[in-house]
Amino acid sequence: MEIEAKRWGFRGKQELNAASASTVRGYLNQIIARINKDNSSSVIRLGHGDPSHFPSFKTTPAAEDAIVDALRSAKHNCYAPSAGVLPARRAIADYLNRDLPCKLSPDDVYLTSGCTQAIEVAINVLSRPGANILLPRPGFPYYESCSAYNHLEVRHYDLLPEKGWEVDLDGVESIADENTVALVIINPGNPCGNVFSYEQLHKVAETARKLGILVISDEAYDNLAFGSTRYVPMRVLGSTVPVLTLGSISKRWIVPGWRLGWIVTSDPNGILKKSGVIDSIAEFLNISSDPATFIQAATPQILENTKEDFFSKIISTLRECADICYNRIEEIPSLTCPKKPEGSMFVMVKLNLSMLEDINDDMDFCLKLAEEESVIVLPEKQRINGCRDSSEIEELASHYFCY
Amino acid sequence: MEIEAKRWGFRGKQELNAASASTVRGYLNQIIARINKDNSSSVIRLGHGDPSHFPSFKTTPAAEDAIVDALRSAKHNCYAPSAGVLPARRAIADYLNRDLPCKLSPDDVYLTSGCTQAIEVAINVLSRPGANILLPRPGFPYYESCSAYNHLEVRHYDLLPEKGWEVDLDGVESIADENTVALVIINPGNPCGNVFSYEQLHKVAETARKLGILVISDEAYDNLAFGSTRYVPMRVLGSTVPVLTLGSISKRWIVPGWRLGWIVTSDPNGILKKSGVIDSIAEFLNISSDPATFIQAATPQILENTKEDFFSKIISTLRECADICYNRIEEIPSLTCPKKPEGSMFVMVKLNLSMLEDINDDMDFCLKLAEEESVIVLPEKQRINGCRDSSEIEELASHYFCY
Repeated sequence: MEIEAKRWGFRGKQELNAASASTVRGYLNQIIARINKDNSSSVIRLGHGDPSHFPSFKTTPAAEDAIVDALRSAKHNCYAPSAGVLPARRAIADYLNRDLPCKLSPDDVYLTSGCTQAIEVAINVLSRPGANILLPRPGFPYYESCSAYNHLEVRHYDLLPEKGWEVDLDGVESIADENTVALVIINPGNPCGNVFSYEQLHKVAETARKLGILVISDEAYDNLAFGSTRYVPMRVLGSTVPVLTLGSISKRWIVPGWRLGWIVTSDPNGILKKSGVIDSIAEFLNISSDPATFIQAATPQILENTKEDFFSKIISTLRECADICYNRIEEIPSLTCPKKPEGSMFVMVKLNLSMLEDINDDMDFCLKLAEEESVIVLPEKQRINGCRDSSEIEELASHYFCY
Repeated sequence: MEIEAKRWGFRGKQELNAASASTVRGYLNQIIARINKDNSSSVIRLGHGDPSHFPSFKTTPAAEDAIVDALRSAKHNCYAPSAGVLPARRAIADYLNRDLPCKLSPDDVYLTSGCTQAIEVAINVLSRPGANILLPRPGFPYYESCSAYNHLEVRHYDLLPEKGWEVDLDGVESIADENTVALVIINPGNPCGNVFSYEQLHKVAETARKLGILVISDEAYDNLAFGSTRYVPMRVLGSTVPVLTLGSISKRWIVPGWRLGWIVTSDPNGILKKSGVIDSIAEFLNISSDPATFIQAATPQILENTKEDFFSKIISTLRECADICYNRIEEIPSLTCPKKPEGSMFVMVKLNLSMLEDINDDMDFCLKLAEEESVIVLPEKQRINGCRDSSEIEELASHYFCY
């Protein structure tokens, strides 16, 4: 056809391919493609941080009612301010202030479309030519995707399995330089299932302060801690180092599809303000999508009306699931858990490849497990991004909430 | 303090400031700041495409019911696939297929967080070093903001007031070159209030084909046409030139805060596919925020259950508002309308500065009108972006839905 012979001046964007392939969604798509379609009814899905399909993980009616009330009022069909509606910002500040010495104000809170957009905001605002960011390994691959797309150089520090997934602080100091802008910490851990102690967070804050970098504390799984280590938010150390807290109602309320998250600044010494980071957050949100206004408007009622019972039932179900999962894994000779999970919804599993036939690496294990057993788990993703030494152990990140 | 004297390695991002200041929100913030606070109850807000605050522009109960049903089913609290849930994609394809010779399939439809994110997707996917995009002047400034942030060069073509805001096709040809990737057309027009005829769209398609560029058709105000020109979607010309249609339920259903939009590919000759644009759209959505899942899930019911009565009442109210607004403006000596509005929710007004005392330009007029009369209207924005010859007329974009 004449029209097809013509030279068209537009084309797709190669860099999107790489950024997109290394997300959890990207890995899952590859793995799910191996599932035998005749067997699809009995698939065991342990690969995605979304328990909302399982009957034991239903949200509270109080949260649903809040949405219906906001919608039926017909007052929230309008556009929202780019930082979010004020009552929601205030309610989130109050929610995060429980047990917190350094008080947040509504002005410190910016609403985002889930924690995903909070990550997008942080990475966009901090990226500049030549800058780099320190990400945990193992970690959550959206940080890598988002950094790659924004040309922010990624440097990985290790979480140490032999020390219960503590941060390798010597490693952090050795990879940081004058172009490092931030360190990301995920607490409770995704995908390690650990909870960082106050002492550990204090050391992280001191190290970041010494290096002159801010801390991005990803608390998507905030308060989902069920082991011996108490969950403490990083922002209690805001006077030592500026902290951006990323969070959402997705995990604690089991509503990841509602897309309501936040980015919160803890900046008692005015460093984020002075450096322009706070203005840039507001400006980025000015040119970005918002969460639905009636969901924003429902947030105060969701946060205030949810009973402690609901939270404690979820915590006890997670603890039970983690125990079952950990004990079963311990019974399998070729698999071990470096540490029993204490938080979030994941367990990290070490593969002993010498005991497994015809398995090349973690991704190969995941693909074959999907194909042969219809069980979906995720590989330890950094390796696939090519950032990990091939000599290191192979690990799997698995959810356990459907046990 | 010791900590403040320290050199911190992060800083805000200057380019966000420029990108954010030139959005409608950015202009509005400047103008609203001039309102006398003692007078805030009597403010007349004509500056924002959001009529949902006004009693004559309430959404239909059918749409609300659809949301409540989807939410109460508790089946849609999960994450959605990155392109959107299939029933919604199918329902939008069916909706857009009414009266359309070239049939869309669900695979052609990608859900976005309002039309705003659809614009973000299009601009991100098409931007590459050295490329440029053709935008209408007057236009919708989010295109400029988004292009600036993505380093996509903007070239403006004129809409001609003396020809009822037709596209200056000679101008289009003169500014396009081998690095031009796309032309944006907004139909019904924002902010000109015009509706492009089929003949005009046909000429635009032929020109784009000749230039080897795709057409981005922003149909945020689809079907909101109440004059003598029939609204025709650009995608009917998809076999002449590839078309990306951007749309949403925001305007026609008066629910901009629900954040449900779409980007739709019309590509019967497979040109977008072959060029990688379609893959890049899917990949970009893989690393972006989604609309809330239960709102996606409600979409089929919203589209199917809304009665023709609701649409025709809105159209007749818009027509009445436009008539009143146009007639009142014609009575004011220093103001004229180049063309009576036929669609969307705007009217463009020409200022005769020689008849106005102490007014320098359109922005000055807007600031003083806010200060003295508590009436909010928007300046013709391109000029402020510095892209317009200073010799040209000063114009105002105003909504009229509260008349």
